[in-house]
Amino acid sequence: MAAASNFYSIVAGVGAGTGRSVALKFAKTYPIALLSRNPENYEPVVKEINAAGGRAIGVSTDVSSELSVKKAFAEIEREFEGKKLAAAIYNVGGRFVRKPFLELTREEYEAGYQANGIGFYLFAQATLPGLLTSVPDAPHPPSLIITGATASLRGSATMSSFSSGKFALRATGQSLAREFGPQGVHVAHAIIDGVIDIPRTKDWPINGGAPGGKISPDAIADSYWYLHTQPRSHFTQELDVRPYVEKF
Amino acid sequence: MAAASNFYSIVAGVGAGTGRSVALKFAKTYPIALLSRNPENYEPVVKEINAAGGRAIGVSTDVSSELSVKKAFAEIEREFEGKKLAAAIYNVGGRFVRKPFLELTREEYEAGYQANGIGFYLFAQATLPGLLTSVPDAPHPPSLIITGATASLRGSATMSSFSSGKFALRATGQSLAREFGPQGVHVAHAIIDGVIDIPRTKDWPINGGAPGGKISPDAIADSYWYLHTQPRSHFTQELDVRPYVEKF
Amino acid sequence: MAAASNFYSIVAGVGAGTGRSVALKFAKTYPIALLSRNPENYEPVVKEINAAGGRAIGVSTDVSSELSVKKAFAEIEREFEGKKLAAAIYNVGGRFVRKPFLELTREEYEAGYQANGIGFYLFAQATLPGLLTSVPDAPHPPSLIITGATASLRGSATMSSFSSGKFALRATGQSLAREFGPQGVHVAHAIIDGVIDIPRTKDWPINGGAPGGKISPDAIADSYWYLHTQPRSHFTQELDVRPYVEKF
Amino acid sequence: MAAASNFYSIVAGVGAGTGRSVALKFAKTYPIALLSRNPENYEPVVKEINAAGGRAIGVSTDVSSELSVKKAFAEIEREFEGKKLAAAIYNVGGRFVRKPFLELTREEYEAGYQANGIGFYLFAQATLPGLLTSVPDAPHPPSLIITGATASLRGSATMSSFSSGKFALRATGQSLAREFGPQGVHVAHAIIDGVIDIPRTKDWPINGGAPGGKISPDAIADSYWYLHTQPRSHFTQELDVRPYVEKF
Repeated sequence: MAAASNFYSIVAGVGAGTGRSVALKFAKTYPIALLSRNPENYEPVVKEINAAGGRAIGVSTDVSSELSVKKAFAEIEREFEGKKLAAAIYNVGGRFVRKPFLELTREEYEAGYQANGIGFYLFAQATLPGLLTSVPDAPHPPSLIITGATASLRGSATMSSFSSGKFALRATGQSLAREFGPQGVHVAHAIIDGVIDIPRTKDWPINGGAPGGKISPDAIADSYWYLHTQPRSHFTQELDVRPYVEKF
Repeated sequence: MAAASNFYSIVAGVGAGTGRSVALKFAKTYPIALLSRNPENYEPVVKEINAAGGRAIGVSTDVSSELSVKKAFAEIEREFEGKKLAAAIYNVGGRFVRKPFLELTREEYEAGYQANGIGFYLFAQATLPGLLTSVPDAPHPPSLIITGATASLRGSATMSSFSSGKFALRATGQSLAREFGPQGVHVAHAIIDGVIDIPRTKDWPINGGAPGGKISPDAIADSYWYLHTQPRSHFTQELDVRPYVEKF
Repeated sequence: MAAASNFYSIVAGVGAGTGRSVALKFAKTYPIALLSRNPENYEPVVKEINAAGGRAIGVSTDVSSELSVKKAFAEIEREFEGKKLAAAIYNVGGRFVRKPFLELTREEYEAGYQANGIGFYLFAQATLPGLLTSVPDAPHPPSLIITGATASLRGSATMSSFSSGKFALRATGQSLAREFGPQGVHVAHAIIDGVIDIPRTKDWPINGGAPGGKISPDAIADSYWYLHTQPRSHFTQELDVRPYVEKF
Repeated sequence: MAAASNFYSIVAGVGAGTGRSVALKFAKTYPIALLSRNPENYEPVVKEINAAGGRAIGVSTDVSSELSVKKAFAEIEREFEGKKLAAAIYNVGGRFVRKPFLELTREEYEAGYQANGIGFYLFAQATLPGLLTSVPDAPHPPSLIITGATASLRGSATMSSFSSGKFALRATGQSLAREFGPQGVHVAHAIIDGVIDIPRTKDWPINGGAPGGKISPDAIADSYWYLHTQPRSHFTQELDVRPYVEKF
């Protein structure tokens, strides 16, 4: 665990799954800020990192609230003063609503966009200036890494809320990749196609209960780190991941 | 022009281009309601249809306002009482903002979603119940037809506002196609890849000024009518259109 | 049925389904040549068209054989001397092999490409010069229309032969659309996603036996005619079609 | 360099670029067989690996010839007797023909499929049985990794030969991923979207000559190794790579 780097990192959307694994992975190299609405989500991870000799802070943040994001980044910049931003990971799932369309309230429909549209807009606005500043001397191309889903590519029945948010997120990610890639910032989008193997999904009978039938969040963290360490002559914009037994 | 059908149709987003042509086309068979924020946009088309012996009304509507949409549909249902809905076309462009991302305000970013996310959600909520009711006796499968764009498939640099809205629209359209298709409602999405040939674009030097280098809005109207008249054993969910000289 | 047009048309791959319906449709406007390996496939259709006052000839052709294709086109040009080519439809299915990959012989693997790669190369080489010649005075943009399948977009397990052929066909179609579109020839690709409703599939329990659960070949023919009659300012390059109850 | 592993690897398509870098990378862990038509292509790489304490053999192979592939694999199996296959990389470019379609000979059109269709069929037939055998005890999921290109996703004008081959390759790769993934073999496809930085392209004015404007072949090798070492609960089927300054 690295407490003393000149660079730091941020992950938004930290719970028991991907966010935790990503935080542990990046914290090996960079001090890290963990954003989550509910402190219960990041506190155990913050402790785990700091106990292991790394440096982590948690900031309670509602990513779809401009004010909340502003306050969070003010705190992060105070905390990591003098350091530059090396990597920012947007891993916000958001409220998952699955309902017949005619029963879906406007608020429920918008929930997908609040989390993955507005939330990502605010996160990208807050992190891109720092990432750009880091381009000349960062050890790896400064990276903005985005967690997508099956629903990023496909609008399934009764999934319009989640899909419209994930489609909007992917559109914005592509747009940023095309604008900021040539400036040296690596914007990458991962399509997570499967159920994550976390305590909450332990008993879900996914893929017939096959061993390895859920996605290891540590493996996702490895893939994000791999993306982050790609040189600028070899940027991956998008990759998919799924368990070997997942139908696709 | 048909003033006396038992069915009616609706087009949201009527100006001098696609909306006008679509309205004229569908008005040959069904009375039609034209929605636009600014009455100046639909008034000439309403007159043109009524003068030709058809029946059209215009309703000033802000599609991203729940209240405005409610009022509009109350008026439409009053006006067309006793008739059933045969076709609803969502042709809203929305405010087109093209700007470096870090200069894009939150309001500008959201404009894409307001027009193509929320606007379409409200429109679909208002029209799907009527379309479902028409399934058993409509002459053609009741249709919800959506205008997409190049930006529906690709997030270009500095286009995150428009693209995120058009991606969200496409996601929602796919979701509705998968939910309502099996119930007999045809949800189709057209990717308009090029500049429309309308008075405003007359002098744009598109495709080297080649004749036919801009998309004829009448041809778009024909394609929407073709989609509307497909039988249920042969639904097209998506098609692209572009001028023969357009690079793609 | 039109026996006297200055233009003619060609359809390769004629049996009891799409090919027959397409031939009947185009024969209403243009004399037509029907290509099939086995005369039993086209003979009833040729009779049907000629009996109805149209003009059709059948030519026994192996589309993957250069010699056979040459002979066929020599015969067609003799037969329709003085006429120009308005539309060419490539509707070849080919041998459908579905087998575990390690049991698939090289000949079986290649069958997909023979039908949809080489076959289409030879067909396009034979028809594009005529289509180009027709550009200035044809009533509609001369058209090369291609029948694709679900397998054009997706390589399913045990389907590598068929998919690799259909992918190659789509690649070639896109390439030709980009090369010949600007010269006025309309190259379009239809993704037929479902089972065609023909005598052979009558008892297949598709989509739970739902009425309209198989694709009407006449509706496919209508869509090909619609594609053919699009003006050059509005070319569709690709559309999908499926029954309303088809999962996708 | 590892000369003593119980596993070996194979790379088909070795020259001065991707193939060489991939060979050097995988040779650090596994003895490796290098396939190329022309021994001049693999000989320097074989020497480089063996000199560094690794173990490599080169086999002159025409991947589109069944006989040649059979002989090559007989030699490889003799050479690596007692070892199991851990990874097989298909990196065959093939003859690149760019020509107006009507000037393209049948032989030229077929060249794309010979290299990327038939060639890959023969390679996959020869390697999958060995990869399957290795599943229970290999250190990483046995892998079949495929080099794609921009042309795998897009049929550009005058590129039908190369595109139809690369589309066919991608179709076959998807089909194998879906058939053999659930059996534990990782089939992955990389879309290389840009010019590789090799001696031959040294003076090509790519991306305005920007530093890092061509793809580092060593970075491609790293990505293939990353793909190979993914656990089965997290298989990437497809990723794209391009230089940060590449337009896409």
